[in-house]
Amino acid sequence: MKAYTEMTRNELLEEQALLQAEYRELCAMDLHLDMSRGKPSAEQLDLSMPMMDVLTSKTPLKSRKGTDLRNYGVLDGIDEAKELIAAMIDTQPENVIVYGNASLHIMYEAIGNAMMHGILGSTPWVKLDSVKFLCPVPGYDRHFTITESFGIEMINVPLTETGPDMDMVEEYVNNDESVKGIWCVPKYSNPTGISYSDEVVQRFANLKPAASDFRIFWDNAYCVHHIYPEQKDEILDIISACEEAGNPDMVYEFCSTSKITFSGAGISGMATSPRNKEEMLKHLTVKTIGFDKINQLRHVKFLKDMDGVEALMAKQAALVRPKFELWIDRFEKELSDLDVGSWTHPRGGYFLTYVSNEGCAKNIIELAQQAGVVMTGAGAPYPYKKDPRDTVIRIAPTLPPMDELDQACTVFITCVKLASIKKLLENATNL
Amino acid sequence: MKAYTEMTRNELLEEQALLQAEYRELCAMDLHLDMSRGKPSAEQLDLSMPMMDVLTSKTPLKSRKGTDLRNYGVLDGIDEAKELIAAMIDTQPENVIVYGNASLHIMYEAIGNAMMHGILGSTPWVKLDSVKFLCPVPGYDRHFTITESFGIEMINVPLTETGPDMDMVEEYVNNDESVKGIWCVPKYSNPTGISYSDEVVQRFANLKPAASDFRIFWDNAYCVHHIYPEQKDEILDIISACEEAGNPDMVYEFCSTSKITFSGAGISGMATSPRNKEEMLKHLTVKTIGFDKINQLRHVKFLKDMDGVEALMAKQAALVRPKFELWIDRFEKELSDLDVGSWTHPRGGYFLTYVSNEGCAKNIIELAQQAGVVMTGAGAPYPYKKDPRDTVIRIAPTLPPMDELDQACTVFITCVKLASIKKLLENATNL
Repeated sequence: MKAYTEMTRNELLEEQALLQAEYRELCAMDLHLDMSRGKPSAEQLDLSMPMMDVLTSKTPLKSRKGTDLRNYGVLDGIDEAKELIAAMIDTQPENVIVYGNASLHIMYEAIGNAMMHGILGSTPWVKLDSVKFLCPVPGYDRHFTITESFGIEMINVPLTETGPDMDMVEEYVNNDESVKGIWCVPKYSNPTGISYSDEVVQRFANLKPAASDFRIFWDNAYCVHHIYPEQKDEILDIISACEEAGNPDMVYEFCSTSKITFSGAGISGMATSPRNKEEMLKHLTVKTIGFDKINQLRHVKFLKDMDGVEALMAKQAALVRPKFELWIDRFEKELSDLDVGSWTHPRGGYFLTYVSNEGCAKNIIELAQQAGVVMTGAGAPYPYKKDPRDTVIRIAPTLPPMDELDQACTVFITCVKLASIKKLLENATNL
Repeated sequence: MKAYTEMTRNELLEEQALLQAEYRELCAMDLHLDMSRGKPSAEQLDLSMPMMDVLTSKTPLKSRKGTDLRNYGVLDGIDEAKELIAAMIDTQPENVIVYGNASLHIMYEAIGNAMMHGILGSTPWVKLDSVKFLCPVPGYDRHFTITESFGIEMINVPLTETGPDMDMVEEYVNNDESVKGIWCVPKYSNPTGISYSDEVVQRFANLKPAASDFRIFWDNAYCVHHIYPEQKDEILDIISACEEAGNPDMVYEFCSTSKITFSGAGISGMATSPRNKEEMLKHLTVKTIGFDKINQLRHVKFLKDMDGVEALMAKQAALVRPKFELWIDRFEKELSDLDVGSWTHPRGGYFLTYVSNEGCAKNIIELAQQAGVVMTGAGAPYPYKKDPRDTVIRIAPTLPPMDELDQACTVFITCVKLASIKKLLENATNL
């Protein structure tokens, strides 16, 4: 098929009429499909059901050290859970604090602490006229929501195939002391799926921040979430890289088992330098006497170690891979020739990204919505929900079953085509 | 025996010499006993071990509504858990948000939200020159640590047998708009064990706060924690009382199953008005996608309903009652005649309070410590750890076994006597 960009106005109108008929038929199907949620499917969750049997009323609910896990205490988590989390993100257990079921909550609290108390003796951020965060884009909407909720100014930094634009990161971090943080998803990034190159990690580690309380928020959410376990991405350990570069306190790293075992009932962790950890615990002891240690033990007994994690994630990969490939294959077949945008080929993580022609993303999402297919909201991968070129659409293929994915993909492709033609016709009119 | 206050100097010196010999013998026993921790004993925790069997790999992990509890979502908790929490604190399920394992964390966040964002449109507390909390004393040290951590000024309010001094509370709350909150443990108060009378609750509900964002922090931590289940205390439901008084938004109520099932792995809840709840959820959705719903289901399946809770708590009462009575009986027998202080007779909760003669508490605690018995730190039941009269000692009898309690009680009584005599001799010298 001819690229839309090469079609005459009449050809476009003809194609549009055909697509509109198709679209009307799709709308008449009264679909209710949701492609917006980065959630595991029931089949993925089923793989962790044996975890419900590892602890029973006959199990001594004690840690290796002999602590009664039913009672209060152990603020930073049991040793065996620290080891598990550390193995997942390639760091040392002594760097780790084990939290409750949501790593997002840790990130929120890390910023909340800095707002109220500063970091390691710095001025509390609430007392500053200006606090800024760098936001590699496209990125994770919930990160941006946290910083927005604290009134922190967010600055877009382009995310390339190998990580954020490090020239820009260095320029900001090393010169502007109101820049206090940067959001990073270093592996299988949400939503584009890229992993940071070794060079990028090294440049991060070697930043010379103008602000002593600048922190890299290193959300290693997809550390073991390979779609192709035989050709998995590896990233450098940021904590040791920072240490070697003489910046040991510059990074807070986060991870969780939310998309390993049960999304709603996992354990999460933070890893950081001894000084940062001590400060986090100083604040944490005001808030709680400790997190759920029985669930920590449950995870350790079920996952055991990194081999256990990798084996489980390989089974999950087998379930999600066909879902990613369904969309990518159809994009390749049905959209490659049309000059209507591009898409990612992630090797891990939870998302596909479709990059439409300029000014089309919002319209594609609206058209899909009207045909009963919910996509992640337009602009979501950008701070303040403002996608400057209106091109980025996050696609979450893991949750729906294959037949629904196929239907949703049909709708999506039709909407891409319709929106692209509409834009081309508009642009032609405007000339 | 003659009261110490009636003894001559020589009689006191004689008694002191005898006690010092006793004390030296106790020190020589090299005891390591801890009376400081409000923790359930292993036997109490054992009662909830069947909870480990209510969910297995064969259990459909779904809520009554059919939600897959393994996955993300359900920010305010599953309906059946809301019902359980509501029954415990005598409110309606629609008032409840179910959180993670620590009600302390909810209280921290409620204040954190107010600091950053104000309450229902009020000025964020960080922007105010002065923010004050009323603190009925003696009270719970961890409450005071939270307010202290935010730099909130704490004002002592005497706690009587029926609740806080309400004249003083009304005076402050109704006239000073920098008074933004009050900490309350309305039932089986920590540490004195008193419960608020209906009149006190009604006076709370009928406050006319100078500050629109004044909130009562109603920590109903011991709602079902009776020591004598046949003669249990009942308190009025503050939420409906506030509603009836035209102050529907004035209270945040908290509770948890921490001292019902497993202290470290329970569920917690907040109950409040629809407007407050909506605001809490607006902030909560920035922090997390939801708390551990599987643990919510586990608790519902195990405890079932209020009858289940009461049955479990009656078994716990049978375990803790002898521990409280051991101390009280020995105080009655060995200290009643001596004029060396008074003690509480709690009908519920987790603590005994010993009120020494003025200026003796710190010394008693130090002497006990040197003899190997750790008591809660001197001053802990007061803001800034400052017990103005140096008289209040919190005793936590639930954790240690009976033989250890008996030993610790021997040490404690000896230390009370020694410190009392020392103070009398000092006072005599100073005359």
